Order: sequence, then structure tokens, then C-alpha cells
Amino acid sequence: MRTQVAIIGAGPSGLLLGQLLHGAGIDNVIIERQTGDYVLGRIRAGVLEQGMVDLLRQAGVSQRMDAEGLVHDGFELALDGRQVHIDLKGLTGGKSVMVYGQTEVTRDLMAARAQTGAQTLYSASNVQPHDMKTDAPYLTFDKDGESWRLDCDYIAGCDGFHGVARQSIPEDVLKIFERVYPFGWLGVLCDTPPVNHELVYAKHERGFALCSQRSATRSRYYLQVPAEEKVEDWSDQRFWDELKARLPAPLAERLVTGASIEKSIAPLRSFVVEPMQYGRMFLVGDAAHIVPPTGAKGLNLAASDVSTLFNILLKVYTQGRTDLLERYSEVCLRRVWKAERFSWWLTSMLHRFPDSDSFSQRIADSELGYFVDSVAGRTTIAENYVGLPYEAIE
Amino acid sequence: MRTQVAIIGAGPSGLLLGQLLHGAGIDNVIIERQTGDYVLGRIRAGVLEQGMVDLLRQAGVSQRMDAEGLVHDGFELALDGRQVHIDLKGLTGGKSVMVYGQTEVTRDLMAARAQTGAQTLYSASNVQPHDMKTDAPYLTFDKDGESWRLDCDYIAGCDGFHGVARQSIPEDVLKIFERVYPFGWLGVLCDTPPVNHELVYAKHERGFALCSQRSATRSRYYLQVPAEEKVEDWSDQRFWDELKARLPAPLAERLVTGASIEKSIAPLRSFVVEPMQYGRMFLVGDAAHIVPPTGAKGLNLAASDVSTLFNILLKVYTQGRTDLLERYSEVCLRRVWKAERFSWWLTSMLHRFPDSDSFSQRIADSELGYFVDSVAGRTTIAENYVGLPYEAIE
Repeated sequence: MRTQVAIIGAGPSGLLLGQLLHGAGIDNVIIERQTGDYVLGRIRAGVLEQGMVDLLRQAGVSQRMDAEGLVHDGFELALDGRQVHIDLKGLTGGKSVMVYGQTEVTRDLMAARAQTGAQTLYSASNVQPHDMKTDAPYLTFDKDGESWRLDCDYIAGCDGFHGVARQSIPEDVLKIFERVYPFGWLGVLCDTPPVNHELVYAKHERGFALCSQRSATRSRYYLQVPAEEKVEDWSDQRFWDELKARLPAPLAERLVTGASIEKSIAPLRSFVVEPMQYGRMFLVGDAAHIVPPTGAKGLNLAASDVSTLFNILLKVYTQGRTDLLERYSEVCLRRVWKAERFSWWLTSMLHRFPDSDSFSQRIADSELGYFVDSVAGRTTIAENYVGLPYEAIE
Repeated sequence: MRTQVAIIGAGPSGLLLGQLLHGAGIDNVIIERQTGDYVLGRIRAGVLEQGMVDLLRQAGVSQRMDAEGLVHDGFELALDGRQVHIDLKGLTGGKSVMVYGQTEVTRDLMAARAQTGAQTLYSASNVQPHDMKTDAPYLTFDKDGESWRLDCDYIAGCDGFHGVARQSIPEDVLKIFERVYPFGWLGVLCDTPPVNHELVYAKHERGFALCSQRSATRSRYYLQVPAEEKVEDWSDQRFWDELKARLPAPLAERLVTGASIEKSIAPLRSFVVEPMQYGRMFLVGDAAHIVPPTGAKGLNLAASDVSTLFNILLKVYTQGRTDLLERYSEVCLRRVWKAERFSWWLTSMLHRFPDSDSFSQRIADSELGYFVDSVAGRTTIAENYVGLPYEAIE
């Protein structure tokens, strides 16, 4: 088998890159370790930045999102009981975010890809990239009991934090930056109307809470819990009681509870690997960086990597601009670090840190107080939340 | 002896408070441990916020400052060679800072006080406040070989970090918040024209440097040095060489060097005590809080404490509003913590931290990069630098 761009991973990054490449007439094959249903079963974030919304429109997969997605012009901060509205639209000169689940994005991309006839190979095991530093890289993998080889010009590693792409790069080439937080998020998905028409980020002495949503009838709630907490110890009742205790009274009173349809605990981590490329293989999204979920930057950051890689490959294939290839990592990392910074900051501001000294606690309270009281401060929050601009590739 | 307000300390805070009280017809006596010449010999900061400039005008001691002080509408950040201008005036809707040495402020206040005939007792030893929790507090002290007692309604502790006022409050009443930084500032005062018409804050891999000034012919330069450094190890030549190495080339080339007229190393510390009052004694300025010098908030924060205490005492004596007295600490601390936050932040952003992990370093680089590239980010820097507004006492 031969293609122009071999994509490892059929999550939203790999599928979006494949769709954009296909639309530009660049041949690509996606190799995925899991089944399509497994990929769709992963519950992930659901807040899309303006830049990602525009990219999905450019890729021609925005029809259902534009019909069903909820445009949010702001969000709510609940700070130890005090409520502060962050007017995204007013503070950023008209920008907003789109609430539309990652699962739905993936479903739309899968459907679009099926229509194009471009190849996606699911349930491929032992995927392995080879010869990335040469002009003739290739992938090997096993599928249906046979061994396969996929020759290509370039490899896109869209296979997530635990994927093979990053792990195939010699360790001494990579520099790793990491911060593990001493807590996790306990999440509940529930078919109840959201407690508020916008998201609510709640800082409370009992710990952080987030009221998110997937649609007008599906809510997603999160609680900060100690890192060692077990999901079995959290009955639905305990979850709702604790959530109510962390929300301002008017919100707690109108919270509609119900049976959880998914409940899980996710650790919080900041992670960046530099560089994001190795020869002809490029790392995209979670394969290269992880953000804590506060601020919902994970999927959006993957989308900006996809945009960068697509725009470079487009110029490579249409204008012979192979000089741009070596700039991929540097261009991505500038935006990655800004999003890492914002996600770290928002996490640090809103969560309770068990080992924080008293000076640091007062500084954090004072910092958040200053930022929400100052128009300039609120603008920095808003412009990061809607997403900093994508960099042009020229 | 009896007065209405007994002030401990004849530094700029005590003198300014005394001047404002005197102007309002409120009798006060200042007790100072040192001589007047000793007080004038202390070299301190020289950047005054708009609020302090206004307060000095209100106190009627601004004539020489208005004639000789240098209004600065901006300052320069040099970030690893890159120069970024912070347009204070443009970003804050017309605010600026005044470059005028603390020594000059003190000299003007001393001269004004001498004219009013209000009493300042210098060289008073063993100053001790008593009975602060009663309606009849008083100070005792020794002077010219005799023991004195000064009865009063209220005591203002304007006697600095090492003063007796805070140390006279029972330890279990106070909560202390503190951060000691692993470096100090080596400062040189020099009769040479400043290298730049505005201040230059330089972040460099060799460490932070600051090009400050007192006048068009007197410069003040600082270098970040390890905490354990000794001033004897720094010849003028070594200082100038190191400063040049940390400045962008165009600045280094036009730096005029000369013989230092003062050279010293100051540690960097963040410190806040809560509450800032104990019965009828009120802590003002450095007696209650210390900031690292980055951003020049120390003297300015003392001035806003003076303003708060003066406005409360004015309403106490003219309207009988003794209910306001208990709000002193809370009102001061809101602004204190915002200034502590900014001073900590600017220090963290611009200095090299020897033990910083690689993630924290990248976050700091990225944070500073974001803040200087964003108009909203630069506005947060500018509005804090010119000084957040004073709170009205009502």
C-alpha cells in the first residue's frame, strides 16, 4: 500500500486532518488501533473555539454542528459564592465558543470520511512507524491476521498521549515538560437540562466544580476530588450533594439531578514534548501535549496543530515549499505554550491545592480577584477562552 | 505630653500622615529613633504612582516634586534582547508615574513639617506603645537621658519592617504571610545621565537588571545577584560589565558609566501581616507589608495606607465616625494584596529562579510572552504599574 500522508489515529485530529487533506486532493490513509465504535465511546470535552469551528466549516463537516451546536457568548465564574459573568462576546469584539460534544464532532467526521471513500483501517494492531528520518518513511501494522506495510511521504501521529508515534522517537531527541496536579476530576454525564444556560466554573473551599453541558437536555458536571479517589465511592446521591454544596445557592436550588449515564475520574496533567516532529513524522494534539481540562483547550489545541500541519502540507504539495516542514514544531509550540499557560493558570486559580502555603493561597485569591474586577483582566480571560488566533503559514 | 495621634517613625509615611493630619487640624507628634540625617541617608525607590503624587499635592508638599520630578508615560521591557515598550499613558487612559526619589520626598516633608511647627522628636530610644486595646493608649520613650510618656487617642505605627509597632502586638493575634526569594538586588547609585529616558526592566538568562534613575543626571542601576553575594566582591568595573551583558546591545553601547556613590545589596521579600491594626494602634506601610522592589510598590503602598488612615481619622474627628476605625485593616489589605500580587508576579516573570523546574520556566516565558503581545495583557501590567485606585472611605 502507498499513500501521500499516513495518519495514525482516527480520533478527531486524525479524521479532521484526513478530511482537510482529502479536500485538497492529497491522498491519505488513517490507521486506527481500536474499532470505530470504541473511538465514539470515549467521552471528552465539548467546548469548541471559534478557530476550530471555522476549521470544521472549512473541512465541510459543520452542517450538524451549525444546526445543533449551542453558541455560548459567555460563561459564569462562581467564586466562593460570588457570581461573575465573563462576557466573551463583549470582551473579545464578537467572538464566542460553540458547545458541541467531541463525540459528535468525531461522528460527523467519520460520516464525512465514509462519503469521500478515503481509507480508514480500524482494529489495526502493532502499528509502528519506520524510517522517519529518511525520504521514504512507512508504517507497518497487523490487521485481520495479516501483516501490512503502508509507504508514504509523511506520517501524522494523531494517536494521543499513549500512542506509538511519540514513543517511536528516540528518547534523547525529546525534551519533556510536565506537571501532575494533586487532584482529579470526577465527571458525571446525565440526561437532565443544564443548571445554567452557560457553563459555570465554581471555586469553593470544598474544591472546584464545573457545570458543563452537551446539549439542552444533556449535562456534564465535574467535581475536583483527591487524586487517589475511587469512582465506586461516589454514588449519584453523594455526587449531587457535593455539587450542590459547591455551587452558589441560586444555582444549587435549581439543579436538576438524575441518574448518571457515565461516571469517571480523570487525572489532571500538563505535558509538552519538544520538538513536535521527528524527520518526516509530525506529532499532532495529545500525542505531543496534554492540558488539564479547565478551559477546555485539549481538543482545540489539537485542531490548531491540524490546521498548521494541513497548511504546511498543502504548500508542500502545491508549491513545493518543503522548507516549511521544519517550522511545524516551532509554529505549533508557540500557541501550545500559550494554551498550556492559560490552562495551568485557570486550574491554579480555581482549584484547592492541599499543600499550598498561606502566601500562595492569598496570592491566588488576590490574583483571581484582580483579574475579574479589571476589564483588562477579564479580557485576558476571555481572549484566551475563545482561543488565541491561529498563526498564518507563509 | 499629650497629642491626638502619636506617630512612630519619621520616614515618608509618618511625615506624610503627620502633614495631612496637621492640615486638617488634628494634632500629632512624631517619635523617631534615628536622627533626621540618618533618615535622609537611606537610599530607597523613586517611582511614585499617580495616587501618591495626588496625595503629596493634597498635603501641600508637591512644589519641588512638580518642578523637578520627571513624569514617565511608559517604561521599557527588555526580554532576552527583545525590547517591548509599555505605554502607560496610552494603556491607562492618561495615567503616568513620577520619578522623584524617596529621599527627596522625605526632605520636602521634613521641610514642610518644620514650617508648621508640629513636633518631631528625633533620636528617641526605647520607644514602646502601651494599652493599645484601651481608650487611653500611650507611648513611652527615652530622649536626652530622660524618660517620656506621650498620651494619645490613636497610635500610627509608621516605623518600618523592623520597627517596634508590629512587634508590640501579641504574636497569636497576627497571621504572617511570607515569601523569601533566592536572590537579592545589587544596587549602584551614580552621577551619570540615565541610559534611557524611561526605566528599563531587563529579563536575561544571566539574571534580571533594572535601569532606574533619580533625575536627568543621577542614575540607579540594579542587578539580580545570588542571596549570599557580598558587595565587596563587586568592583564598579565588574558591575558595569555585568550590567552591559544583561542589556540589549543598543542600550549597553550607550550606557555611561562612572564612579558609584552608593553600592549595596538588598534581599527580596514578600511579607504581609494580618490584621494591620490592634486596638487603637494602626500599622502603616513597611510595618505591615513588604514587597520585592520590582515595580516599585513599597513606598506607594505606604502612601495608600496613609491615605486610608488619614481619611478614617478625619471622619472620626470631624463626624464622630468611630465605626470606621475597625475597617482600616480590611480596606488596606484589599489594595495591599493586589500590589503584593503584582510585585510577586513581575518579580517571578523577570528574574531567573535557580531551582525552577523546566515546566515552570516555560510557563513563565510563555506567560510574559502572552502578556506583552496582548493589548489586554499589557493593560493589566500598565494599570497595576501606575497604581490601582484608592478606595473611598464612606
